[in-house]
Amino acid sequence: MFSLAIDAMGGDRAPDIVVAGLDLAAERHPGARFLLIGDETRLTVLLARHKRAARVCTVLHTDDMISNDTKPTAALRMRRSSMRLAVDAVAGGQASGIVSAGNTGALLALAKIIVKTLPGIDRPAMAAISPSARGDVIMLDLGANVLCDARNLVQFAVMGDVFARTVLGLPAPTIGLLNVGSEDTKGDDTLRSAAETLRMSHLAAQFHGFVEGHDIAAGTTDVIVTDGFTGNVALKTGEGALKLIGQLLRQVFSSGIASRIAYLLARPGLDRLREWLDPRRYNGAVMLGLAGVVVKSHGGTDALGFAHAVDVAMDMVEHRFNDRIREGLGKITGLEAQLAGGNAALRNTNEAGTEDGPGFGSASPLATAG
Amino acid sequence: MFSLAIDAMGGDRAPDIVVAGLDLAAERHPGARFLLIGDETRLTVLLARHKRAARVCTVLHTDDMISNDTKPTAALRMRRSSMRLAVDAVAGGQASGIVSAGNTGALLALAKIIVKTLPGIDRPAMAAISPSARGDVIMLDLGANVLCDARNLVQFAVMGDVFARTVLGLPAPTIGLLNVGSEDTKGDDTLRSAAETLRMSHLAAQFHGFVEGHDIAAGTTDVIVTDGFTGNVALKTGEGALKLIGQLLRQVFSSGIASRIAYLLARPGLDRLREWLDPRRYNGAVMLGLAGVVVKSHGGTDALGFAHAVDVAMDMVEHRFNDRIREGLGKITGLEAQLAGGNAALRNTNEAGTEDGPGFGSASPLATAG
Repeated sequence: MFSLAIDAMGGDRAPDIVVAGLDLAAERHPGARFLLIGDETRLTVLLARHKRAARVCTVLHTDDMISNDTKPTAALRMRRSSMRLAVDAVAGGQASGIVSAGNTGALLALAKIIVKTLPGIDRPAMAAISPSARGDVIMLDLGANVLCDARNLVQFAVMGDVFARTVLGLPAPTIGLLNVGSEDTKGDDTLRSAAETLRMSHLAAQFHGFVEGHDIAAGTTDVIVTDGFTGNVALKTGEGALKLIGQLLRQVFSSGIASRIAYLLARPGLDRLREWLDPRRYNGAVMLGLAGVVVKSHGGTDALGFAHAVDVAMDMVEHRFNDRIREGLGKITGLEAQLAGGNAALRNTNEAGTEDGPGFGSASPLATAG
Repeated sequence: MFSLAIDAMGGDRAPDIVVAGLDLAAERHPGARFLLIGDETRLTVLLARHKRAARVCTVLHTDDMISNDTKPTAALRMRRSSMRLAVDAVAGGQASGIVSAGNTGALLALAKIIVKTLPGIDRPAMAAISPSARGDVIMLDLGANVLCDARNLVQFAVMGDVFARTVLGLPAPTIGLLNVGSEDTKGDDTLRSAAETLRMSHLAAQFHGFVEGHDIAAGTTDVIVTDGFTGNVALKTGEGALKLIGQLLRQVFSSGIASRIAYLLARPGLDRLREWLDPRRYNGAVMLGLAGVVVKSHGGTDALGFAHAVDVAMDMVEHRFNDRIREGLGKITGLEAQLAGGNAALRNTNEAGTEDGPGFGSASPLATAG
């Protein structure tokens, strides 16, 4: 049994940065075993230069690879691509997870169809870790699902909770639902329904309610739950703002002698800041809700970034991530059954208890979709 | 006829910063006449200290004001609030526009019901200006409409175009539709329909297609069109990221003697950067699509910020903003009539012309909602 199947050929500078990244990862996870899938000739040369990686990798040869332009439908037809063989290894039980820096759409499609979703999960979600004023935060979904219903959002909250416990090591992560205001009456029916369910679930004590865009960087909650459209836009908007400031600061510190001296004097602090915000440290968008660990590294990352993506995958494998998701889902399924059985009684309690909130009646997606 | 009716009592530090802001605005717009509505005793004292403001203001007394906690429904019942009287002045033709730093929800509700929407506009939108790597960009909607259809998005594009011409002075502003990817096939039916319509409209040459979250700070297009949910989250996410960097930079430059000296050396550049990103410079969310100019200043702003909000309103009044919206809408209405009449012919042309895009058939919101 391999810890991870590695798509050696995915990404802008594959397979070089993949093998170099595994060399770093091997030092951090000496017990790991990787199934390295790709062009054997090139991989053998690279492994000869990276002794630590060589000790933990077994090479599986294939000539085929999926490029960044390959459409998901075409990717599904390629039976011997390095990504497909890695996904097959997880589906077949030879490896617990996969890391690929290749085509995101292809990986998502292959993983959904071949690895399959966990029982009880309607749709997988993409999650990532990003920096905030109060430590790392997890946001999901980041684009796997453009449209989401309340049931999807509740499942994302369950997965986000387990992900934050596993990868950030938090004992009881706080959870926020992204909205246009923090008051209970804000947003649409889908959001209000999801909030109602979470308030009655095993996550009630951790659920902070609605949060807004500025709460992401403020770190108001450890987990931010949203639909894939909003999450994708928010993630990229935040990254864009950070990039703009980076460019502007470089201009400030290269304009004239005084500024250049200032840069040298402030450099240790600026370097720490840059390191803390380093996108490589946050590399690895994770596809949650699949019957195996699936981590997508950024295509343009370097060895350090790829090693971070492997770290995330190893954390999930070692902490039996999916077993814990199943436990959380079991509790939500129990709540759903209870709601479907005692809907009238529940509605009465709820209407007595909340003043502003919408009633939790038969219009609830849980009652209709459950 | 007054240029603007000013809600003197709205905002955290009203009426002081309102009168101080008008003093600055009076210098920039010496021909303006303001109807200043609020507590006459307090306003008279303030105007005695601000001579330039006193020359351009006429005071209308009222004891009532809407607080930040007032719900929109309660605000509608208050007939003598300073905000209500300002809105009445616009609806009654005594003033061309209103500026208020008060309760956003109340202002939007009062403006929609009393000032009313422009003929041809289904829903007003909130727009704001923000900084980017390539100059100022305009984004709308920022929260007036949580759910939007394709027809709303097309109307927002028409209004955003005129707003960019009027306030940024651009002869042919480029327009992007916010999505999760730039390919034509990305997003949901609403977005693809709106894009199809814009490609056939008088804005075709300015329409850049889909843009992503990072394009906001990059300034890829001058105008970013999106629904109110996504726009609100994106705006606040970007602001949150900038605020986080500001806090971190302050920490860097206050840690140790070398860093403090560095700050002094780099200060001119850092001050210019701070000034350029200064939220006061971007103060004034504008409610577009109403039969009058309605500008909402941030509640926590100072005199300089309030003066900027007045600037935006004056630009719109002086450039006959609403007349130009009517012209743009006329062209879109013409296109809609043409589409409704020649739907089948149009569908054929379109299917021959585009490979990936969805057909523009009877499922189009324009055909059903038009």
